[in-house]
Amino acid sequence: MDIFSAKYAQEFDERDPLKLYRKKFELNDADLIYLDGNSLGALPKATPDRIKQVIDKEWGYRLIRSWNEGWYDRSQKIGAKIAQLIGAQPDEVIVADSTSVNLFKLAYGALKLQKGRSKIISDQLNFPSDIYLLQGLIDLFGQKHKLELAKSSDGMSISNEEIEALLDDDTALVTLSHVVFKSAYMYDMKTITERVHEHGGLMLWDLSHAVGAVPVNLNACNVDMAIGCTYKYLNGGPGSLAFLYVRKDLQEKLNSPIWGWFGEDNPFEFGLDYRPAQGIRKFLAGTPPVLSLTAIEPAVDMLNEAGMNNIREKSLSLTNYLIALFYEVLQPLGYRLGTPTDPAYRGSHVSIKHQEAYRICKALIDKNVLGKSVIPDFREPDNIRLGITPLYTTFSEIFEATVQLQRIVKEKLYTHFSTARDEVT
Amino acid sequence: MDIFSAKYAQEFDERDPLKLYRKKFELNDADLIYLDGNSLGALPKATPDRIKQVIDKEWGYRLIRSWNEGWYDRSQKIGAKIAQLIGAQPDEVIVADSTSVNLFKLAYGALKLQKGRSKIISDQLNFPSDIYLLQGLIDLFGQKHKLELAKSSDGMSISNEEIEALLDDDTALVTLSHVVFKSAYMYDMKTITERVHEHGGLMLWDLSHAVGAVPVNLNACNVDMAIGCTYKYLNGGPGSLAFLYVRKDLQEKLNSPIWGWFGEDNPFEFGLDYRPAQGIRKFLAGTPPVLSLTAIEPAVDMLNEAGMNNIREKSLSLTNYLIALFYEVLQPLGYRLGTPTDPAYRGSHVSIKHQEAYRICKALIDKNVLGKSVIPDFREPDNIRLGITPLYTTFSEIFEATVQLQRIVKEKLYTHFSTARDEVT
Repeated sequence: MDIFSAKYAQEFDERDPLKLYRKKFELNDADLIYLDGNSLGALPKATPDRIKQVIDKEWGYRLIRSWNEGWYDRSQKIGAKIAQLIGAQPDEVIVADSTSVNLFKLAYGALKLQKGRSKIISDQLNFPSDIYLLQGLIDLFGQKHKLELAKSSDGMSISNEEIEALLDDDTALVTLSHVVFKSAYMYDMKTITERVHEHGGLMLWDLSHAVGAVPVNLNACNVDMAIGCTYKYLNGGPGSLAFLYVRKDLQEKLNSPIWGWFGEDNPFEFGLDYRPAQGIRKFLAGTPPVLSLTAIEPAVDMLNEAGMNNIREKSLSLTNYLIALFYEVLQPLGYRLGTPTDPAYRGSHVSIKHQEAYRICKALIDKNVLGKSVIPDFREPDNIRLGITPLYTTFSEIFEATVQLQRIVKEKLYTHFSTARDEVT
Repeated sequence: MDIFSAKYAQEFDERDPLKLYRKKFELNDADLIYLDGNSLGALPKATPDRIKQVIDKEWGYRLIRSWNEGWYDRSQKIGAKIAQLIGAQPDEVIVADSTSVNLFKLAYGALKLQKGRSKIISDQLNFPSDIYLLQGLIDLFGQKHKLELAKSSDGMSISNEEIEALLDDDTALVTLSHVVFKSAYMYDMKTITERVHEHGGLMLWDLSHAVGAVPVNLNACNVDMAIGCTYKYLNGGPGSLAFLYVRKDLQEKLNSPIWGWFGEDNPFEFGLDYRPAQGIRKFLAGTPPVLSLTAIEPAVDMLNEAGMNNIREKSLSLTNYLIALFYEVLQPLGYRLGTPTDPAYRGSHVSIKHQEAYRICKALIDKNVLGKSVIPDFREPDNIRLGITPLYTTFSEIFEATVQLQRIVKEKLYTHFSTARDEVT
């Protein structure tokens, strides 16, 4: 059967062992194909009731008593569930603050621990704000460090060798995104971490585009530190709290610069001299926003139930399918692939490039153009980023999105739109 | 009429011009007298629907599009509403992170700006984690600063002179709580800020126990920086985001050490070199948790509508009444007053001390003891802290709580409870 057919996609959807999960999300708009779960995950159906319970019962009725009835430990309990998704121990992960603040805390701690070493390594494909944070830390430590960014030779990936070439015994810290935000290039976590350790460096992985999308095994890779957000594949809602991981044996040595209220050993003793809490709690800062914290749990439970290996299998089927369709119908129209073809180095989104990417995205989103709104992410300068969330993205959606990509260029439908960047995100 | 009578209290409640606001909160438990709004404010009735809208419509239905439809500017819009409560300009206040993280960002910026000055001043009555944060910053800056804490001669207040005695031309930063968390002592913000400025110091006020409880006029007092939480008198819900204020002319000079995603000038350009945003946005770090952010708005709107002067008038009527009852029936039983009697130096809570405070609190909370649960805060070592939230606390509740305090000691009802500290908070 022709792979470029609605029927082919439907058959794949019918055979999908995870197909029941789609129904567990609020995706009821028949005119919408949502391929942006890697920016903001969809709403799990279980979440509104859970938040209603937090608001009406825990806050409204039990009031302050709820701190003793579940709130105080919630950052740790949900952290322990995230730990299962990323191959870590329950007491190595905690939910806290934002990804930015967590990167700041851990990278500060790492640089302090690595006193005397002056090199920080990242790459040019990393999420820009991870780089900003490092630039800020260099300023904070008085310009004693230099930041070296590995370059990408193909614009989408960076080989192990390109990282290794930068490593030396002056290397304090290496921080990379496990799955790169534009291209979905996925690093070989185990090898890179090993090489960094051979030079005495500390390794910090940003899992924002990886957690819930690909299997991660921090312990097996002997990773020192990791951070990640929960509003993408963990479906925690807009700006939901981030998480951080510190390997057990490093927790005592590493210190956060933010000696905050919830990171103290016994905050309710109200002593005037700070003593960091034992274990992972020491990396907390202030009181966690409980609504946004609790909203993380429903989808994390679903992901643990579905199993990361099953999720990976479906993710690869979906991205393989999309890439096959790309070669079949999009490449001939001038589209280029911005994502690795080797599945071993691919996360769960696919970037398709086109010089008119911005206007093509506008045409995809506007449902007046082709009857349905397809939501991707536009990423400067020429990326149409299609997020594949294995729990709810269907083969049929990928087929329909490809048809739209095809028609928008073939029929020059993008020309009705302006190139002016008129929106914030 | 005898002030120690239910009828007296009821008459005050009937004449209360703000009495309608009580009905705007979910306080339906007839067996509960909630005097802990200074720890966690009660749930406004408008909030569940507002959050339902964020979840169902903004997140569930509009998905990523909501960033362009209200989320991106929400931190600033709610900040501008909080600005009205604290005498600041709309572009001087923004909602962000936790109080701990905000204190860290601003105090870091201040110490950096005040290079060459080594003294940091606070006081022994300040909230401990404000002190922890300063201790952490001293560590971060390499032990170049010393922290001096003004002592309290009476255990509940600190005179202007006691602060002035510590000021000199080596003073970099003074940070104090406008209303002190245990005693409710309220500083003379204008005079202290002036004195600090005379010595070239920067002044940072923590408004956590002041905002929404007492009128604050940051601009009139020429305050440099302020921070505060929103889960007390702003009723934003458990761990709701904090806010920060930086005086307009200081915004350009002051810099956050956390060069984060949302504090960048144009994060969606994805440039690799950090440029701080213009104005107050530069003090943002990561993506704000939108659920916990939005929950702040309903009560802030109510407070602006009710007017801080009216709120102050009611607050003083309530605390004056409680103090009058204290002298009438509690002092004779061995209770001591832990809050200033002079209304000019009193916030909106009242601390009553007793050597058996911990067990008395247990007896107050247990509704099996006297038929109703009265919820105060116990604060080590001997404080029963009664929070008075002018929008919903009634004179009758204060009367009933006083009757319980009286009976629990008179009839030794606290002796049924253990002194073991068996709860977290």
